[in-house]
Amino acid sequence: MVGMSLSSRKKRVMAAVMADGVDALLVTHLPDVRYLCGFTGSSGVLVLLAGKAVLFTDGRYTTQAEAEVKGARVEISQRSALVMACEWLEAAGVQRCGFDSAYTTVAALEGMRRAVSAKMRRGIFVALGSIVAGLRQVKDADEIATMREAAGLGCLLFEGIFDVMEAGTTEVEVALALEHRARMAGAEGMSFETIVASGARSALPHGKASGAKLPRRGFVTLDFGVMWGGYCSDMTRTVHMGPAEQEEQDVYHSVLEAQMAAIAAVKPGVTAGAVDEAARSVLRRDGLGENFSHSTGHGVGLEIHEGPRLAAKQAQVLKAGMVITIEPGAYLPGRFGVRIEDMVLVTKTGCEVLTPATKAWIQL
Amino acid sequence: MVGMSLSSRKKRVMAAVMADGVDALLVTHLPDVRYLCGFTGSSGVLVLLAGKAVLFTDGRYTTQAEAEVKGARVEISQRSALVMACEWLEAAGVQRCGFDSAYTTVAALEGMRRAVSAKMRRGIFVALGSIVAGLRQVKDADEIATMREAAGLGCLLFEGIFDVMEAGTTEVEVALALEHRARMAGAEGMSFETIVASGARSALPHGKASGAKLPRRGFVTLDFGVMWGGYCSDMTRTVHMGPAEQEEQDVYHSVLEAQMAAIAAVKPGVTAGAVDEAARSVLRRDGLGENFSHSTGHGVGLEIHEGPRLAAKQAQVLKAGMVITIEPGAYLPGRFGVRIEDMVLVTKTGCEVLTPATKAWIQL
Repeated sequence: MVGMSLSSRKKRVMAAVMADGVDALLVTHLPDVRYLCGFTGSSGVLVLLAGKAVLFTDGRYTTQAEAEVKGARVEISQRSALVMACEWLEAAGVQRCGFDSAYTTVAALEGMRRAVSAKMRRGIFVALGSIVAGLRQVKDADEIATMREAAGLGCLLFEGIFDVMEAGTTEVEVALALEHRARMAGAEGMSFETIVASGARSALPHGKASGAKLPRRGFVTLDFGVMWGGYCSDMTRTVHMGPAEQEEQDVYHSVLEAQMAAIAAVKPGVTAGAVDEAARSVLRRDGLGENFSHSTGHGVGLEIHEGPRLAAKQAQVLKAGMVITIEPGAYLPGRFGVRIEDMVLVTKTGCEVLTPATKAWIQL
Repeated sequence: MVGMSLSSRKKRVMAAVMADGVDALLVTHLPDVRYLCGFTGSSGVLVLLAGKAVLFTDGRYTTQAEAEVKGARVEISQRSALVMACEWLEAAGVQRCGFDSAYTTVAALEGMRRAVSAKMRRGIFVALGSIVAGLRQVKDADEIATMREAAGLGCLLFEGIFDVMEAGTTEVEVALALEHRARMAGAEGMSFETIVASGARSALPHGKASGAKLPRRGFVTLDFGVMWGGYCSDMTRTVHMGPAEQEEQDVYHSVLEAQMAAIAAVKPGVTAGAVDEAARSVLRRDGLGENFSHSTGHGVGLEIHEGPRLAAKQAQVLKAGMVITIEPGAYLPGRFGVRIEDMVLVTKTGCEVLTPATKAWIQL
């Protein structure tokens, strides 16, 4: 099944790059390499030609590459894998090889040019956009199945975490409990540094778990994800410790309504900007427009942040098979904040929430 | 104290870049940004001019930047911080601005050029090497104090981990115990994905903790580090579960002798290659030359892998103040492996081991 996916992915990539007038593609961004041939090592370069694929890596990964790589020949390099790949390209007679300008540094490009002969240097490497990352935005069936599992584990972790959430427990202890349980459940790790932001810290959109203690009264925002089969989950819930003020409840319900409005707007053909605006207009109506200081969401997959970006005025159109987050928030600096986030799969007719854990008001 | 360090770091950087004929430096690599102004956010661009520094970041980091940034003005950008920095540079009359070609993508450079007027586009941005990363190789007193604490915590964690290391415990459980204790002791996290490689997996130089169970008899390699005050620690010890074969003990003592020989070779003025050779020649003598398949070590600091690189034939000369790892290993595929690693500070007369946890044979 995965082998078939890899073959179809490579075909789609080659169709796209050949339309750009090149006859080969140098793939250096590691999530792209994994996507196209299954290799998960931390050093490797994949070269794609029509009907041919070669992975260059080094001696540390001999065994691992043999076990993981499907549909590509493996070459173990004694020197830089990138240099070896470029020499191989020239020897194979490639005239124009695309590379991803968003993941190739100026120094790497200089090294690539030095690796080929003077007569090829000028024209062989052609800067392209992020073709593989673009195709990765639309997930295939294998990916959706894995991401469904990843998101489901995230929900189980959230629903099980209340036992450690007592006033006086530190944010770090809550984060560690989430992480420990994720790993024991088989996750490879967390998909980003766990956010546990309590009390006034909930007003920080990026409040990584600190030594601060959970308050007797106040919000706690939990924003976390797991790595599962190489894929990231991502979800946020905000719960309240002890009795809440009316204003806290009002802000919570505004954010929730904004989040539901954005989810309701998700379907193929709408722009990312329209989904953002669906959330933003609710918060604006409630006088919280200035308090929603970030974008509504982002694509997620092998990486925690992928395209599309769901921000104001983004013209990119959603397609069935995209997996995106919907995560509006409202932040009152020095006081409190609320964010609610789901992972959502764009379907043919609308969308499916992959993180169905309750969003009802929770008071601990 | 830190404020003084930041000021001195900026002065050294500007002296170096002005020697390259530029009048400003665009700093985009986040560890470099942190090193020069204290900002730890995940998005920010620092511009240095003689006697002037400006950090550009976005609205998510307003509060954090105010709290953290020292010796630089903070500008909050509504758009891309990089674009805003480039526009500011042109408005400030900068004619030639250096950038680090190893950390600037081809696409970013295009964006930088688009951000300035057509007449400036051609000449304003000048590709430089990694000047800040180069200076970061030599640690100042503040950094050494922090790294001494980070390394010390690593030793405490190693010395305390034997209680969970029983036959049947999984590698992941050992890794989680290390990580949990690190966080509870105040570490921000681990400096890389913890390696716990047991039994035949100890022959994998990068054997990340898996669901494999610790054996009744066999090696377990623990390679881990903490993040402490922004700095990384890094150490490896290999211990044996149950009674060992003579060959296992022989390999262990060869690796230990190689590691000690490399440490003995460390002093200012020697080449990185000479230190590598000191380790490699011991293993070669014992017939293990082919089994030592990686380099002897690397610099460490704000990042887990920094310069210098301690590999065969590396001509770079060690300087007092560098902090490096010394980590030879020997790997017998399918059977077992041993690696022993210390963090070492190059001193005026030789070196000091920052990770003095025992390297004597440990049998659990």
